[in-house]
Amino acid sequence: MTDGRSTGDAVAIVCGGGQFPAAIVGVLQRQARPFFLFLLRGFADPALARHPHQWIGLGSLGAFLKRAKREHCREVVIIGNVVRPRLSQLRLDLGGLLALPGFIRHYFGGDNRVLSGLASLLTSNGFELRGAHEIAPELVMPEGAAGSLKPTAADREDIEFAFAMLRALSPFDVGQAAVVAGHRILAIEAVEGTRGMLNRLAELRRSGHLDAGTRTGILVKAPKLGQERRIDLPAIGIETLEEAEAAGLRGIAVEAGGTLVDDLARFPERADRAGLFVVAVQPPGAAS
Amino acid sequence: MTDGRSTGDAVAIVCGGGQFPAAIVGVLQRQARPFFLFLLRGFADPALARHPHQWIGLGSLGAFLKRAKREHCREVVIIGNVVRPRLSQLRLDLGGLLALPGFIRHYFGGDNRVLSGLASLLTSNGFELRGAHEIAPELVMPEGAAGSLKPTAADREDIEFAFAMLRALSPFDVGQAAVVAGHRILAIEAVEGTRGMLNRLAELRRSGHLDAGTRTGILVKAPKLGQERRIDLPAIGIETLEEAEAAGLRGIAVEAGGTLVDDLARFPERADRAGLFVVAVQPPGAAS
Repeated sequence: MTDGRSTGDAVAIVCGGGQFPAAIVGVLQRQARPFFLFLLRGFADPALARHPHQWIGLGSLGAFLKRAKREHCREVVIIGNVVRPRLSQLRLDLGGLLALPGFIRHYFGGDNRVLSGLASLLTSNGFELRGAHEIAPELVMPEGAAGSLKPTAADREDIEFAFAMLRALSPFDVGQAAVVAGHRILAIEAVEGTRGMLNRLAELRRSGHLDAGTRTGILVKAPKLGQERRIDLPAIGIETLEEAEAAGLRGIAVEAGGTLVDDLARFPERADRAGLFVVAVQPPGAAS
Repeated sequence: MTDGRSTGDAVAIVCGGGQFPAAIVGVLQRQARPFFLFLLRGFADPALARHPHQWIGLGSLGAFLKRAKREHCREVVIIGNVVRPRLSQLRLDLGGLLALPGFIRHYFGGDNRVLSGLASLLTSNGFELRGAHEIAPELVMPEGAAGSLKPTAADREDIEFAFAMLRALSPFDVGQAAVVAGHRILAIEAVEGTRGMLNRLAELRRSGHLDAGTRTGILVKAPKLGQERRIDLPAIGIETLEEAEAAGLRGIAVEAGGTLVDDLARFPERADRAGLFVVAVQPPGAAS
């Protein structure tokens, strides 16, 4: 703890797919904080390899623990998309094998149980799991509308309705997102993910099962109650805007302070261009 | 009421798509009850036109009321699939126009509100809306397994889990069906319908997002609480077996006494051939 680079001052970033790992790296660079990247093979953007890094497999817990300690990391951030692998396809190293019984117990529960299990595995190895929103608060969407378009009073009723439904789903560890239009739930997200759900609505419009003429529907995303927020905070990005526009939606609503945005600087202008309102609201429970 | 064919002894059957209208006709023929079919243009099977019938559009309430009275119908059964039309595409006749304010009020709610609205429209015109399960109780799936395959204890836990989730969704007038595997909800049905949901799972398996190697997942269907059971009872058919098999599922669970089956005679053999258990269980609320 006497040299310039004291033990534990670096952040280990375990990187899945999508734009969020690069966004976190950008934030840490601006903060001048040291970091080391663990790039998940098959998921992470290879462009990230220009930073200090090691490629690892999903089951490489032992390799991760060893290298993270060597790189003076104490805090760990896990960020980016990872499709849950088939258990038989996981290649576990020694550390992974030792952790296996606990992992399997968690694996067969819902997403939230998998993530909580991962958090306690890290803690028991001396690391501290941190949420991306804690390390990089500038990636968290603040309350209010992001662009110049605003939801109407009717839209706000729909948003409340969808938030209430997602809250009712919370105990079942499913459903971080839904699409609502005129007090009618058009779609609920499960394993297909937000992109899969939005693509489905685009398809239903093309086939005439949903009104294709006017823009209707609001994508509503919310953290599950009791969710492991350090890993699995809802996130929207430029891609979400494109997918929502293609699905013919009129807006996106998220929870203020509980949603990551990959590029808040470009987001307002891109939302306007997509013809979508994007609004972060206080969750109903907090407001009332 | 003195002639052989007394006023009101015929059943008006409003027929949408799928196999259920023909199944109801078969039951009424065996009961030797008179009936008259209103075939919904664009939905009903043209083969039904060999029975006494009139083709009508979805907005033809006036034409329906006039003809149904002329055909001595008092009881009305509405059966078969109808994709909710775009409101601007509905062509309303005079009766439909007169009913429009109430219809629109209901239309913009969820499915259940649309159906309740329809029921009260019929009642106020002197008709009696009857459920298919009341007119043709032999189409209702009895408690127990339909074929020779049975759910395991773990399957039964999953089925209870999914029933509980569907019950939690009930107040939001969405979600008559879900797919569950290992206490994890893989999919929830909204406007895409059961077929759309099963096709999605088949696609997720093909793309490797879901384990394609072993048969996992149970389709669970349940009536919504407070659902207008006279119109919108959950239904499964031979086609559902084919779609569930294509989605790689291992079984189907429905509520005993609350689910229609299009062809109960052929169903057990077809379920066995598809390698699926099909079980009707008492809803958890009733059992405990």
